[in-house]
Amino acid sequence: MSLITDSRPFDMIVVGASGDLAHRKLLPSLYLLHQGGNLPSPGRILAVARHEWSREAYLAGVEKGCREHVPDDFQPDAWRGFAERVDYLRLTATDAAAYGDLARLLGEAPDRVRVLYLATPPTLYGDVSHAYAAAGLVTPASRIVLEKPIGTDLGSAMEVNASVGEVFAERQIYRIDHYLGKEAVQNLMAIRFGNALFEPMWRAEHVDHVQITVAETLGMEGRGSYYDQTGTLRDMVQNHLLQLLCLVAMEPPARLEQNAIREEKIKVLRSLKPIVGPDVTRKTVRGQYREGAVAGRPVVGYLEEDDVPGDSKSETFVALKAEIHNWRWAGVPFYLRTGKRMGHRVSEIVIQFRRVPHLLFPDQSGMLDDNRLVIRLQPDESIKLAMMIKEPGSGMHLKKVHLKLDLFDGQDGRMPLAYERLLLDVIRGVATLFMHRDEVEEAWRWIEPIHDAWEERGNRPRVYAAGTWGPPESIALTVQDGRYWYEHVVESQPRSR
Amino acid sequence: MSLITDSRPFDMIVVGASGDLAHRKLLPSLYLLHQGGNLPSPGRILAVARHEWSREAYLAGVEKGCREHVPDDFQPDAWRGFAERVDYLRLTATDAAAYGDLARLLGEAPDRVRVLYLATPPTLYGDVSHAYAAAGLVTPASRIVLEKPIGTDLGSAMEVNASVGEVFAERQIYRIDHYLGKEAVQNLMAIRFGNALFEPMWRAEHVDHVQITVAETLGMEGRGSYYDQTGTLRDMVQNHLLQLLCLVAMEPPARLEQNAIREEKIKVLRSLKPIVGPDVTRKTVRGQYREGAVAGRPVVGYLEEDDVPGDSKSETFVALKAEIHNWRWAGVPFYLRTGKRMGHRVSEIVIQFRRVPHLLFPDQSGMLDDNRLVIRLQPDESIKLAMMIKEPGSGMHLKKVHLKLDLFDGQDGRMPLAYERLLLDVIRGVATLFMHRDEVEEAWRWIEPIHDAWEERGNRPRVYAAGTWGPPESIALTVQDGRYWYEHVVESQPRSR
Repeated sequence: MSLITDSRPFDMIVVGASGDLAHRKLLPSLYLLHQGGNLPSPGRILAVARHEWSREAYLAGVEKGCREHVPDDFQPDAWRGFAERVDYLRLTATDAAAYGDLARLLGEAPDRVRVLYLATPPTLYGDVSHAYAAAGLVTPASRIVLEKPIGTDLGSAMEVNASVGEVFAERQIYRIDHYLGKEAVQNLMAIRFGNALFEPMWRAEHVDHVQITVAETLGMEGRGSYYDQTGTLRDMVQNHLLQLLCLVAMEPPARLEQNAIREEKIKVLRSLKPIVGPDVTRKTVRGQYREGAVAGRPVVGYLEEDDVPGDSKSETFVALKAEIHNWRWAGVPFYLRTGKRMGHRVSEIVIQFRRVPHLLFPDQSGMLDDNRLVIRLQPDESIKLAMMIKEPGSGMHLKKVHLKLDLFDGQDGRMPLAYERLLLDVIRGVATLFMHRDEVEEAWRWIEPIHDAWEERGNRPRVYAAGTWGPPESIALTVQDGRYWYEHVVESQPRSR
Repeated sequence: MSLITDSRPFDMIVVGASGDLAHRKLLPSLYLLHQGGNLPSPGRILAVARHEWSREAYLAGVEKGCREHVPDDFQPDAWRGFAERVDYLRLTATDAAAYGDLARLLGEAPDRVRVLYLATPPTLYGDVSHAYAAAGLVTPASRIVLEKPIGTDLGSAMEVNASVGEVFAERQIYRIDHYLGKEAVQNLMAIRFGNALFEPMWRAEHVDHVQITVAETLGMEGRGSYYDQTGTLRDMVQNHLLQLLCLVAMEPPARLEQNAIREEKIKVLRSLKPIVGPDVTRKTVRGQYREGAVAGRPVVGYLEEDDVPGDSKSETFVALKAEIHNWRWAGVPFYLRTGKRMGHRVSEIVIQFRRVPHLLFPDQSGMLDDNRLVIRLQPDESIKLAMMIKEPGSGMHLKKVHLKLDLFDGQDGRMPLAYERLLLDVIRGVATLFMHRDEVEEAWRWIEPIHDAWEERGNRPRVYAAGTWGPPESIALTVQDGRYWYEHVVESQPRSR
């Protein structure tokens, strides 16, 4: 990625600064950037929320969050320096009249990079943008960061994009997907395009299928109301899983540059075969967890969660078989699955290569395993290649080994958070890892018919016990093609956050 | 390799049992096989030499050799069991009349595997075979093992093969090249044919060139007389280096079975472009060491070594550029080099892949290194893949990493000697790793014109200082093609013997 080193002074306005995302991710990430000397200076952080807090009270909350979420790295000296950058402003985001205070705090600063980070409910994106603009706060060096979900279907996504687009040019809009900030995901590109060895293999001729799994052990954790309106398909598949699919499947871009990469991703989304009619039953699985046990602890079912209606038909699990209709990927299924309350927390992309075309090792054909590249995003980040070598000693007996790429080799100390990277990219004006409006809308265009078909049919989701890998229909989805979900082995300690 | 588990009782007759090879390699390897429970039982070892020794005196020498050459593994209990298998017989190998004693010791044993191991000067192979046969010792279950060199040119090789062939059928003749018994070399086949990932890359479209280096630090060590008559081309290139070239370059055999593999190797040898006329100057380098220093210790030049004529034109170093005229390898040079008194003891095969066709990382094009597979045979055995990954942190900066395949992962204790594997293969009747008569002769057919051209021209070899990587002309051989010899990094402790 060509790194535009825009290290001009900046102001970052975090709207929704009292929320969970701000406390768990945004402020700790900014703090870590500061501590590592990577945050341009001067640079201010204006935390904005509707609570009647003093700056000190707000900072005390942020410090607590930092100590909690970056405990190994917390350095009191660096904290004091960071705290000096932070100011707090009480403001009701939808009250246009209140933006005068923000304008006074920001002052006239046409050259200063100005980042508006909306850590608010997505329904407010349009209104906040307009109120912000009405107060004359949009400068040429302004950028806006939007969190998912952008809309709940194609129509509402287009509305949000249009509304924000009335105020900000597309090049100023940074739609964030923190999965793309992960080192392992970045390395997917480095490995494909920085080595001559993999790209020739990266196609239907040599790849049998691809699996993308994002499994969470958490249940609703107080978000039952939001989740029940959204469901897994729209909360996870439309954004994270399709973005990962795009990165795996895209053609080599002409340059590692934002528009070149976005164009390739959009081409993938446009090549996705629509799942409609009888294919919805054949190629998608909608699941909902019942009570069960996660990590030995009993947990309630989805219908018993707070703020979830007892007759909810929302899904907490999705498995589907996507197909990409282009020359590179024709005939190669992309199996996606994601769910809440699964057996382990693990996110992995598995590139399963085809069998060797001819078996030279007849006495051990059953033992000969296929090559597999496993890119793990969670709980730790790693890339592993499963391959066969010879067992030492007499004869020619093969055994499987896992070549593990140490992504953090030679890196002393900690590895950067995904949000650190992405926030710095925004401040520097590097949009490569952010989504274009067309990507979001193309993803909705593919997702919507699946959701609509589910709703029309009105069936209840398939039930699975909490702590398992989803309903049996998910297994059947791959087995009907003679394939199997990869068994994720979670042995190592989390190194990623 | 389909493993014929012929664990019938056996007798192994080691002719030349008082020599260096027998004491350093053969008897220690047999001892280790016994100790590991891998030597079929009952099984006798009849050590034969012309010295007037008692069995006890001979065994004392072997025990000393074992203690010296397998010090970590020597177990007195196992030794006693092994010693019971060993007998010593005084016999002048060329004295046909003396073979009666051997016949009496062996007795009538038509079903017993009978291995005649000739650890004698190669000039005796024919005579010993005939004397052995005249004594009626060739049974249907007989095998003969021949060490290199088979002949000193095509004509003499054909003579030896013909003479031994009058007594033994080709399927009974095991021409040994201990390089082929090394785990790393075996893994070359396991990796190519046990994985779908490498074979598609294993061709001119993706491989830029191949390097095979066998560098020794030793000088003559008392072998000046033999070496001066032979020279490096015939002592090393004709067998070891060409065998390694064949294993890298061969087409996938139909089965991992002796005839299928030999046929593929012979096809490679027949596809080697002859080096004749002006190509001898352009594509070969003949070197001879002068005084210098190896590992900080001053050493004499070749011409000052014992038993080497002061005006010798024999080479102690060869570099050459081989080309294989077939569809797979057209345009891919195979650079071979081997020499005495070089900077390090290291034997490696380097598969250098082509550059990525399009550079996505413009700001670091100079840093982007090409993929390379390095198969190390000495001093330790390993397989490493050099590839690029992303540096952790902001931006997209690549760095080179080495993926190392641990060939001995999960193997507790020691790894088998090449000779252990090969001796067991002989006893079991597995000839996959041994050379067919046609291979030896084809190799000579390619080597001979180079040697003849050198002799005709009568030039002195290019001089290089002991402890260096050969004469400057060796560098020029690759540089004229815009390529460089791989810089072998020898950091690890020897694990191989």
